[in-house]
Amino acid sequence: MLINCAAYEDGKKLADLPISSIREYVSRPGCFVWVALKDPESSDLEALQGEFHLHPLAVEDATHGHQRPKLEEYGDMLFCVLHVLEMDELGNLEVGEVDIFVGPNYVLSVRSKSRIGFLNVRERCEQEPHLLKNGAGFVLYALMDAVVDRYFAIVHRLEGELEQIEDRIFTERGTARANIEALYALKRKLVTVNHAAVPLLEAIAHLYGGRVPQVCMHIQEYFRDVYDHLERIVKITDSVRDMLTTAIQVNLAIISLEDSAVSKRLAAYAALFAVPTMIAGIYGMNFEHMPELKSEFGYPLSLTAMVVLDIVLYWRFRRARWL
Amino acid sequence: MLINCAAYEDGKKLADLPISSIREYVSRPGCFVWVALKDPESSDLEALQGEFHLHPLAVEDATHGHQRPKLEEYGDMLFCVLHVLEMDELGNLEVGEVDIFVGPNYVLSVRSKSRIGFLNVRERCEQEPHLLKNGAGFVLYALMDAVVDRYFAIVHRLEGELEQIEDRIFTERGTARANIEALYALKRKLVTVNHAAVPLLEAIAHLYGGRVPQVCMHIQEYFRDVYDHLERIVKITDSVRDMLTTAIQVNLAIISLEDSAVSKRLAAYAALFAVPTMIAGIYGMNFEHMPELKSEFGYPLSLTAMVVLDIVLYWRFRRARWL
Amino acid sequence: MLINCAAYEDGKKLADLPISSIREYVSRPGCFVWVALKDPESSDLEALQGEFHLHPLAVEDATHGHQRPKLEEYGDMLFCVLHVLEMDELGNLEVGEVDIFVGPNYVLSVRSKSRIGFLNVRERCEQEPHLLKNGAGFVLYALMDAVVDRYFAIVHRLEGELEQIEDRIFTERGTARANIEALYALKRKLVTVNHAAVPLLEAIAHLYGGRVPQVCMHIQEYFRDVYDHLERIVKITDSVRDMLTTAIQVNLAIISLEDSAVSKRLAAYAALFAVPTMIAGIYGMNFEHMPELKSEFGYPLSLTAMVVLDIVLYWRFRRARWL
Amino acid sequence: MLINCAAYEDGKKLADLPISSIREYVSRPGCFVWVALKDPESSDLEALQGEFHLHPLAVEDATHGHQRPKLEEYGDMLFCVLHVLEMDELGNLEVGEVDIFVGPNYVLSVRSKSRIGFLNVRERCEQEPHLLKNGAGFVLYALMDAVVDRYFAIVHRLEGELEQIEDRIFTERGTARANIEALYALKRKLVTVNHAAVPLLEAIAHLYGGRVPQVCMHIQEYFRDVYDHLERIVKITDSVRDMLTTAIQVNLAIISLEDSAVSKRLAAYAALFAVPTMIAGIYGMNFEHMPELKSEFGYPLSLTAMVVLDIVLYWRFRRARWL
Amino acid sequence: MLINCAAYEDGKKLADLPISSIREYVSRPGCFVWVALKDPESSDLEALQGEFHLHPLAVEDATHGHQRPKLEEYGDMLFCVLHVLEMDELGNLEVGEVDIFVGPNYVLSVRSKSRIGFLNVRERCEQEPHLLKNGAGFVLYALMDAVVDRYFAIVHRLEGELEQIEDRIFTERGTARANIEALYALKRKLVTVNHAAVPLLEAIAHLYGGRVPQVCMHIQEYFRDVYDHLERIVKITDSVRDMLTTAIQVNLAIISLEDSAVSKRLAAYAALFAVPTMIAGIYGMNFEHMPELKSEFGYPLSLTAMVVLDIVLYWRFRRARWL
Repeated sequence: MLINCAAYEDGKKLADLPISSIREYVSRPGCFVWVALKDPESSDLEALQGEFHLHPLAVEDATHGHQRPKLEEYGDMLFCVLHVLEMDELGNLEVGEVDIFVGPNYVLSVRSKSRIGFLNVRERCEQEPHLLKNGAGFVLYALMDAVVDRYFAIVHRLEGELEQIEDRIFTERGTARANIEALYALKRKLVTVNHAAVPLLEAIAHLYGGRVPQVCMHIQEYFRDVYDHLERIVKITDSVRDMLTTAIQVNLAIISLEDSAVSKRLAAYAALFAVPTMIAGIYGMNFEHMPELKSEFGYPLSLTAMVVLDIVLYWRFRRARWL
Repeated sequence: MLINCAAYEDGKKLADLPISSIREYVSRPGCFVWVALKDPESSDLEALQGEFHLHPLAVEDATHGHQRPKLEEYGDMLFCVLHVLEMDELGNLEVGEVDIFVGPNYVLSVRSKSRIGFLNVRERCEQEPHLLKNGAGFVLYALMDAVVDRYFAIVHRLEGELEQIEDRIFTERGTARANIEALYALKRKLVTVNHAAVPLLEAIAHLYGGRVPQVCMHIQEYFRDVYDHLERIVKITDSVRDMLTTAIQVNLAIISLEDSAVSKRLAAYAALFAVPTMIAGIYGMNFEHMPELKSEFGYPLSLTAMVVLDIVLYWRFRRARWL
Repeated sequence: MLINCAAYEDGKKLADLPISSIREYVSRPGCFVWVALKDPESSDLEALQGEFHLHPLAVEDATHGHQRPKLEEYGDMLFCVLHVLEMDELGNLEVGEVDIFVGPNYVLSVRSKSRIGFLNVRERCEQEPHLLKNGAGFVLYALMDAVVDRYFAIVHRLEGELEQIEDRIFTERGTARANIEALYALKRKLVTVNHAAVPLLEAIAHLYGGRVPQVCMHIQEYFRDVYDHLERIVKITDSVRDMLTTAIQVNLAIISLEDSAVSKRLAAYAALFAVPTMIAGIYGMNFEHMPELKSEFGYPLSLTAMVVLDIVLYWRFRRARWL
Repeated sequence: MLINCAAYEDGKKLADLPISSIREYVSRPGCFVWVALKDPESSDLEALQGEFHLHPLAVEDATHGHQRPKLEEYGDMLFCVLHVLEMDELGNLEVGEVDIFVGPNYVLSVRSKSRIGFLNVRERCEQEPHLLKNGAGFVLYALMDAVVDRYFAIVHRLEGELEQIEDRIFTERGTARANIEALYALKRKLVTVNHAAVPLLEAIAHLYGGRVPQVCMHIQEYFRDVYDHLERIVKITDSVRDMLTTAIQVNLAIISLEDSAVSKRLAAYAALFAVPTMIAGIYGMNFEHMPELKSEFGYPLSLTAMVVLDIVLYWRFRRARWL
Repeated sequence: MLINCAAYEDGKKLADLPISSIREYVSRPGCFVWVALKDPESSDLEALQGEFHLHPLAVEDATHGHQRPKLEEYGDMLFCVLHVLEMDELGNLEVGEVDIFVGPNYVLSVRSKSRIGFLNVRERCEQEPHLLKNGAGFVLYALMDAVVDRYFAIVHRLEGELEQIEDRIFTERGTARANIEALYALKRKLVTVNHAAVPLLEAIAHLYGGRVPQVCMHIQEYFRDVYDHLERIVKITDSVRDMLTTAIQVNLAIISLEDSAVSKRLAAYAALFAVPTMIAGIYGMNFEHMPELKSEFGYPLSLTAMVVLDIVLYWRFRRARWL
């Protein structure tokens, strides 16, 4: 589905175009065309492949989807795959994909499996013509920056999830099973974020500093900035993973401790029953000569003994924190 | 066993050949011979060693089998070992091997311990003469691509296995032992896939970008594509391993939790027996002055007390989720 | 908020300046201006951005804060982000930030979220004019050195915390839960220190040895010294982390051991009750021919048997260290 | 002890020599001397040190033994230390050492603490004069190859040991303690193999590809072959270690499971006793009005109730797999 | 405190000197001065700083102590920090420090917090004038070699400690707590050794092979030898750490196993009590028609039944290894 197609010159939008007029603008020097597709048919891509001379392997990747984030150079064309992360209401992570083809005079972005679009990126670019006149490379930067910015929101939510679980581990008894499930689910999400961020980090490292593709040459510092953001994201996920590993161990220790506490309580209660049972057993013996049995106060005294002993025991268990 | 032997020129098949005519075609410029063997006798290999001037160490490796995946250059010959992974009906991984010798004008593939062949690779190559005219290097690519593509199916099945185990861990009680065995078996398979994929990744990295062997020079982007697929496979197995490690810990925690739950249930039942036993003990005492014993309602009341106390206890245990 | 603004020449302070006179001194050769801000409004930064020609991306970073420690070159300007660590009375770590812009003739430090300032750094610099005449780069060094020096205090406190926990683990029974919480909290702090120190280490490595920015050229050995201190800090935190991991495992083992000790005690007590109960049961049987029942000494002897057996058991449990 | 001393020219043996005639052959161009010592006195080594101009540090290393595997260049001499691994009848690993000095016209191998010699290496070399004429470097290769080949046997036995333990873990109850001991012993052996193989791997990497010592120049592909074998060994030990770590965790989980199973069985049996005891208690009460007590069928019916209840319980425990 | 101060020329000692005559000998070509201090006052160091033109940062490091092992070049001066490890009678590790300043014509060693000195190093050097004539660099080597040699003794003791703990883990029951403490203490010592050895390893790597400081140029092979020893030490500590990690896990498993064994024993004993109690309960019932009660042999038979059942149970528990 075509979302958008426009030509830009010197940072300003010239016109919205039909696909058929792309050729005209692409050949105009100093001008570039920015096309946005969503969940395209393979025919859509094929049409544009002709206009922009896209490399067949890149088009194949964009058609099939399910790529790792990456950045590939095919001659003077860059092909970039980004993962778009969105969190639904239940806190599940959904992974969409944006494939971006960038040439000297065109940008083609192909979005799939992602609910949120990039219209606001285009708007912001159009409001900053002094930056947009850096050309197609700047659009690549703007899209990357938007994608990476969304990672921050995700990563901070995951940090928050970890903190909630930590609180539960240390303060709420009986949540161990829920904590385990939550920690495991969190781990899964961290793996997903890592799969999105780490390969992209490696990719962006090629866009500043060393041998940089022509189209990104004059805006290297912007890519370094994205790199920097991404590195922060990766470090945060790394430390969340690190804490999570410890949290799992700690949770296990808490389970052992609670188990041990349960054993103690059980044993204490067992003792509270065992004492009267033993006394009762003694006075249930059939010896002929048991003077207590004849005494009028035997029965009430034995009951009192049971109760008193149990109270003493209860108090001692309490003090030892077994009950 | 000879599977296939044919000569190609300019991307088109010239003829199926007997071994004896290989020499003639090999010496013809612009032409290359593609020979496929299966579980060959060492005599088969020796014959071809002469025709293609294969290096003795490479031939020795192909004869013995059991090699790690690798890529070696001997002068202008490439020797490549690939692991072929197949999953049988029971979900066991079987490892076969394909050894490929590639020279400027020949490709020799030697398949062993693998049920599935590569005839479809040859067919697809023959249907795409515009690609096949890239020569022997393209055949190497096509074989690699076919082998690596099969890894995807395996890896996705392993992902599926992990998800099944995860489901069982969190939802089905009493499956802990089965889960452990399944997790361990899964780990084994991941190690096998890693052994196939990681060394190959290192090997393919030499086929694009830097100093590339002559025979692969013009199709570097295809090898980068295989590299990319393989890297995805490695990343997936890495994250499955990572989750698996966590799953083992989590499973252990669940075992502790279930154990603890069992302790609680046992203790609750023990209490349900202990209460009537204690009451019965008390009224089994032989004191002369126990007025309850004389009462007509003593017995039914004591039974009622037992039942009522047990019901109360049961209800409390229920509420505390011990029962 | 402006904390301080002064011009220096040849290692000596010329004058305290209002912001408006900065331009005059910046343009004077051999002279540099040192400005310190705290929690600045974005307008404050914008004013100085004009004076010092700061790069917009760096200013944006300083305005937003929450950066990782880093060192970036923008032309002949260095932009450096440091984390300031402070420990409050409860032992919690607080992370502040200092952003430092260094150019050939100016230093601008922007402090945020940090209670402790750097006035003493300025004082010490002014007392050592032979060093301060190395210019703006030396001020960068002096600030870094002050920040890193504070890390030492933190790290040594964390070492102390670990040692306290270790002592408790091995010598005080019943502290397992408190130890787990303390170990987990310690881990969190270590992660925080690592986040402050490791990226800075990577950054400072660019300030000596290889291609060094002009402004730090003549004082490389000082930066190597900071690097050295920082590396020591990193190594200490690494080994604290390493020991901490082991401590968590060890604590878990101690929990198991204590649990096991509790089981033994419980069982021993249960036995002490079970013996009299059994004997009482036996003499509670209703057989007609039980000669002991008739004996006058039957009852006292049976009680004696109960007591004696329990004493023997108690003594044996004691010896086996079950009680 | 001198094992062997012979001179070779053009791949063929010239003569067995006494030590005293070495000088004559060493100085003859195109000729090299191959000396094999076993557990030598330091005097033996000193004598040869003079003949071959061995470097004192290398001789010191060979005299003291207990070296890590390594490869050192001293001018045009190579000094190589290899670990020889042998497994005794009880499955214990023994580590011997071979130190090899290689110069342009001599090879001196010094074997210590190893039962098995290298006579077969010399024999095979003498049977392949077309290879042996590559000179002293080829002898180094042949010795390395023989040593590394023996590693394979060891490593495959360790794989076998792991598989046996795995089988026991999952199929034989009550073997947990034996399994732990076996896993620990296996770990020790893996560490030993790793100590032999990994440093050697690093060492051999200097014998092909890059700047290669003169004496190995023409047979680089042979050293690459050894490297390849060694890398396979290292990968196998790595994956055995990896599985072993998992096996230890899995074994721990199995221990917990068996423990839990034992608890259940015990509790079930306790219940089987508790039921009759409770019933007996009830009919042991001394109420005057307990009609069952007068009934002729009271006793048999109560016994029947005990038995029936126990059978029901038993059947339910059975079904729940507690018994 | 000045320990020693002497001048050497051509490998031979010229004279013991007072500090005041150092200047004279330092300026004499081909001659070098070797000064040894112990726990110096800062005034001692300042005096020598003037004589030898030591860099202030290095002197500051030597004054404060508590440095990581390192090697720094300041112009043609080398500054080297080594950790000296000593084990006291209780097996505790003590860490001392030696700081060594080496210039073309002087060596200054500053020892602190270490009981054992380096007089024997000086003696050995003076006995080998053919080596000592390599100058100040050789003294650096000799000191390093002495320090590293002492590491071996430490590391072998730690290996011995591990083996003792292993023996206890597998053969002596009830030592689990002691083992945990011992393993933890061992881990601490390994961390200490690692802190001494690993940074030194990195440092020494700069003294051979690549760009080597002038003063060490002609004795590179000696530094390679130290490097080699140190690498062996590091590998040994690495594998001790590795085994130790496994030993902690194994110990935990053993704890679980012993715990499980205790549970079984307890349960077995409980059963031995439960059987007579149940039988006694049955014959304590008050049914009128219980023929056994009238029988003269009822009582002895019931006692016999109790004993026989217990013997059978005991024998079965024994066979099942529960008792």
